[in-house]
Amino acid sequence: MKKYLEIYNNYKELILSNQLKFGDRMPSVRKAAASLEVSKTTIENAYFELQADGYIISTEKSGFFVCYSNSDSKGENKIVINNKDIKYDLKSGDADKGSFDISLWQRYIKSALRQEERFLSYGDVQGEADLREALSDYIREKRNVSASPDRIVVGAGVLPLLSILCSLISDNKTVSFPDESFVQGINLFRDYGNDVRIKDKNADIIYVSPSHMTSFGSVMPIKRRLELISHTKTTNALIIEDDFDSDFVYQSKPTPALYALSGGKNVVYMGSFSNVLIPGIRISFMVLTEELAREFEKNKLHFAQTASKTEQIALCGFIRDGHIKSQNRKIRRLYTEKTKEFCNELKSALPDADCSISDNGISIRLVTKFSKDLSVFENNTISVFIRSYENGVLKLIISPSSIPKESIKDAVNALKTAIS
Amino acid sequence: MKKYLEIYNNYKELILSNQLKFGDRMPSVRKAAASLEVSKTTIENAYFELQADGYIISTEKSGFFVCYSNSDSKGENKIVINNKDIKYDLKSGDADKGSFDISLWQRYIKSALRQEERFLSYGDVQGEADLREALSDYIREKRNVSASPDRIVVGAGVLPLLSILCSLISDNKTVSFPDESFVQGINLFRDYGNDVRIKDKNADIIYVSPSHMTSFGSVMPIKRRLELISHTKTTNALIIEDDFDSDFVYQSKPTPALYALSGGKNVVYMGSFSNVLIPGIRISFMVLTEELAREFEKNKLHFAQTASKTEQIALCGFIRDGHIKSQNRKIRRLYTEKTKEFCNELKSALPDADCSISDNGISIRLVTKFSKDLSVFENNTISVFIRSYENGVLKLIISPSSIPKESIKDAVNALKTAIS
Repeated sequence: MKKYLEIYNNYKELILSNQLKFGDRMPSVRKAAASLEVSKTTIENAYFELQADGYIISTEKSGFFVCYSNSDSKGENKIVINNKDIKYDLKSGDADKGSFDISLWQRYIKSALRQEERFLSYGDVQGEADLREALSDYIREKRNVSASPDRIVVGAGVLPLLSILCSLISDNKTVSFPDESFVQGINLFRDYGNDVRIKDKNADIIYVSPSHMTSFGSVMPIKRRLELISHTKTTNALIIEDDFDSDFVYQSKPTPALYALSGGKNVVYMGSFSNVLIPGIRISFMVLTEELAREFEKNKLHFAQTASKTEQIALCGFIRDGHIKSQNRKIRRLYTEKTKEFCNELKSALPDADCSISDNGISIRLVTKFSKDLSVFENNTISVFIRSYENGVLKLIISPSSIPKESIKDAVNALKTAIS
Repeated sequence: MKKYLEIYNNYKELILSNQLKFGDRMPSVRKAAASLEVSKTTIENAYFELQADGYIISTEKSGFFVCYSNSDSKGENKIVINNKDIKYDLKSGDADKGSFDISLWQRYIKSALRQEERFLSYGDVQGEADLREALSDYIREKRNVSASPDRIVVGAGVLPLLSILCSLISDNKTVSFPDESFVQGINLFRDYGNDVRIKDKNADIIYVSPSHMTSFGSVMPIKRRLELISHTKTTNALIIEDDFDSDFVYQSKPTPALYALSGGKNVVYMGSFSNVLIPGIRISFMVLTEELAREFEKNKLHFAQTASKTEQIALCGFIRDGHIKSQNRKIRRLYTEKTKEFCNELKSALPDADCSISDNGISIRLVTKFSKDLSVFENNTISVFIRSYENGVLKLIISPSSIPKESIKDAVNALKTAIS
């Protein structure tokens, strides 16, 4: 068995047997590495697994805490992680019902299905040619990302695209992620035989999400963007730029893409439409470097298209007719307005608490005094992302996107009740 | 560089520099391994790559041949592999326009999109719950495959599902494939650090496609199915049963699934709807063993759903209302009738040739004398799969599925002209 899995199993057992209890702080990565005589990466990998399986959570600066509560205990200490019947979901960042005109989308789907002959064959592995053309124009105009359609690859989400990327890049690379939150991506790179690290700027591959650097939605400043590019120019590292949530950045002016800043050298640019349209529609794309695009072309037979052909054709029309631009404006306005309103309501409901809106304008950080033990919210009303609880101070990240405007007051009150 | 890639590059250079010419036989795997002092697996891997990149083709019994013709040569010797403007496509097995009532499908898509609230959130990683329920009933009734919905995983094609499977199974396994034709699957398992072999019944994992064992569509006889199951019961190997094309098996009675024969132990069952519906709609599913289902549940956070939510919801209704059954009957009748008719036309057009229909009833094997060099068909009229050319005998596999009934005669004549 791999070393990190052994360590994972040991800690898991300690947690399940209640020797490590809910709220206990895990040893720091450095300490654990020293006492178990393994590398820090091994410990980090074990902690990722424990986190992925819901046994521990990481806090911003103070390390990892046990968040699993044994079923023998009174059950008061559970954090609601996934409860579909929850009334106010302040955690998932799901879409607002009013955010998307589904009947307009339906018209494009219908017109896509009318192109009957296109459905008789399998789709283009790379993505439908007309969609790739539309995407090429769209990202040039919107993000100054200039790439011909033959360098664009379409897929059903970022994960299948990263999987293609992993296959194109030979294994045994070091890959840096900004933190542990993108569990799926970290795991995928590891599955493909790469060595995943956290914030290692000497890695061969650097995954960044400049418009969504932390779960709180910090945006990478332009200075750091330029530093990163000049750094990778000397080290020849490959940057994977996941432009996730760039549509929402409103507080500052939209920051330029790394791809545009670097002239497209050494940068793979990734974008997605789940946020702009609606999460239930999954179409993502990536722009490969020239070298990787040649590799892709050579190895095309190894891959298959995952994105729905119908939805690709529909999206192509939707972009060409300019709807994506107005949709962009609409959701930015809607979500940032709601975030502001929610924040204002919070301030008047909890005057002693510290509320601030994230750079990208779609989440709120709430820092408040809280006397009880970490655990809350087993009341089937609210689910929320707990960032940390230390010394009587509770930090929460609130994503109000799915709360209808008219329910914001009620949601704030429910939150107040839960933490008062 | 990996050894097999070196060997791949050497052969590629020999082919590109015309030292190995179109139609030349490649050294046998055994001989090449001996002379280059590497394992047979290394040679096989190099040959897979050459095949995947279109430099060589494999023939049924006589090994590998160069099928790449240098652009310096007269260009007469090219086999048309992918030409979208081709008039009679006897290669791809694309669907017949009349095979699917797309307006009926459109109604289900429309009704799916009416369930607006379902699109506000990301889809279930495992697949929409109602679809998995419908699938569970469907495969129980149709293939005697009995599995609860929580053991079913949905994805956009077999490849993303195999990718999940690779991640659930630890690496360094030996994996057996029946031949080299499923390049994508072979490559995926290799990318995940497994050792791929051909027809190695002592492998840890055995991938089989019992209703489509060869490119000619041979069906695995019941005796061999039972042998395989009893063999894996002693070795404890995992069978991946890709039930591809089982819908078309008509000459014999439909043969039972390995999953059903084994009682679901040690078998992962995979099915797809691209054939029954239309290739442009990609929804596949797999039934995990109990053990793997537990692993999946534990690691759910590592994966993402690839299949379109809209199409999943539509398919659920389509199955529940019984349309999938009538669609099954319809395409089986349509394709087998066309295959018979095509075969009869061939027999009267080429009375000296040897024509036979595959077990699964959707392709025709044509063996005929042919005096010219291997190459044919650069006439923009026909594309066809060449199985082999040896000693003046040409073997072709013909898939007439995409040819409209009224064009069968013309397609046969075009084929006759090309090979006479």
